[in-house]
Amino acid sequence: MPRYRLDIEYDGTDYAGWQRQDGQPSIQQAIETAIHGFCGDTVTLRGAGRTDAGVHALGQVAHADLAGAWADDTVRDAVNAHLQMARERIAILAARRVSDDFDARFSALKRHYVYRILCRRAPLVIEKNRALWSPKPLDVEAMHDAAQRLVGRHDFTTFRSVQCQANSPVRSLDRLDVVRGAGEGLIEIHASAQSFLHNQIRSFAGTLRLVGEGKWSADDVSAALAARSRKACGPVAAPGGLFFRAVDYPEA
Amino acid sequence: MPRYRLDIEYDGTDYAGWQRQDGQPSIQQAIETAIHGFCGDTVTLRGAGRTDAGVHALGQVAHADLAGAWADDTVRDAVNAHLQMARERIAILAARRVSDDFDARFSALKRHYVYRILCRRAPLVIEKNRALWSPKPLDVEAMHDAAQRLVGRHDFTTFRSVQCQANSPVRSLDRLDVVRGAGEGLIEIHASAQSFLHNQIRSFAGTLRLVGEGKWSADDVSAALAARSRKACGPVAAPGGLFFRAVDYPEA
Repeated sequence: MPRYRLDIEYDGTDYAGWQRQDGQPSIQQAIETAIHGFCGDTVTLRGAGRTDAGVHALGQVAHADLAGAWADDTVRDAVNAHLQMARERIAILAARRVSDDFDARFSALKRHYVYRILCRRAPLVIEKNRALWSPKPLDVEAMHDAAQRLVGRHDFTTFRSVQCQANSPVRSLDRLDVVRGAGEGLIEIHASAQSFLHNQIRSFAGTLRLVGEGKWSADDVSAALAARSRKACGPVAAPGGLFFRAVDYPEA
Repeated sequence: MPRYRLDIEYDGTDYAGWQRQDGQPSIQQAIETAIHGFCGDTVTLRGAGRTDAGVHALGQVAHADLAGAWADDTVRDAVNAHLQMARERIAILAARRVSDDFDARFSALKRHYVYRILCRRAPLVIEKNRALWSPKPLDVEAMHDAAQRLVGRHDFTTFRSVQCQANSPVRSLDRLDVVRGAGEGLIEIHASAQSFLHNQIRSFAGTLRLVGEGKWSADDVSAALAARSRKACGPVAAPGGLFFRAVDYPEA
């Protein structure tokens, strides 16, 4: 059966997350339903990342095996037409046929996320559910310096949800950069790794916010990491600030 | 009575527009209600621009006369607290006491708007109601060149709504720049003038889109302007792409 790679954007605000769940709206199910509407196939979509409720994607990647061979643009446009009819906040940015050994989840070499924080006195309106609101200014340089304590191969027990189902809490974090974004008061936390633990980036964001507020030092972050205890983590930051940005795969 | 200037951001998607209307949610009424909730005053807010249903603001300016003298930050934070309680998509970015001769509408020297168009095959999701979707790529340079035919002092009958209540269709357009925005496929139309006619910028945007698609030339735009007929206008572009960005006033 022909395999297709889908590059997907979504506004996660009104979804229970990527993964199909009984009785809850999920991104996965919405796209599977749209594919069924287009070609009648009952497919199981496999995504590169299982984003949580409220988390967005600019470049989620998934694959599906269809019964028939369709032109790439037909798949993209037809699935989008069905998503639009169902008023889903999901779009297929690109669809293309790939070889059978491509697996959106297991072939991924690196995943890229960005967490957005907007610092200003007034509550967020245009950026509501698209960024974390910080009424206080944050020290971006201090946040970036502290973030470097987390880069590398570590036991990230402190920074994963107690519900995390991964076998091991050890991960290699390739990048955790805290930079000023385009727009007054905007801060972006860029995180890249082959894989992340459940709630890992939101745990980083909430902890680095404490550093930005001057409540924690970089040494406090190192101590929290070394504690290997969920209790040592800062508060988990809200999902609306998190965007699944892109996935790297081996050259085809 | 102490007069306050309010700088206001809003997501206009779910509002019938700036202006108070019976039985319809308006930005003006929402803020007047929040002010009443804060200090008990029944005020009439005067705004610099009467934005239409679905149009957003990053920097609308309005003024109101309050019975009491409050610290600027108290006005901002208290009105925001009441707007948040009412779940309005409106925020007061700044409040400050101004002299009695400041009038948000009549003191304005120049108003600045931006109209956003996003060109890509996939329907808009993250930018839904924040930009006009163009499934086709547009020729930005051709749009900019044609836009220059509209700059200056003209009779803009072609580019105003038949419901426009202005006495004269003559306006001086100071700036109409079409530029690439930050982000793939994003186009911004920047418009500045002391005042605009009803639907003028959305009429420009819809007409310039025809130029971007290669359907109209710059000469067609000149001819449409010279026709001084509403029938000569291109289709009016959707409100969600339009943002009221800022207002210039004389130095205090």
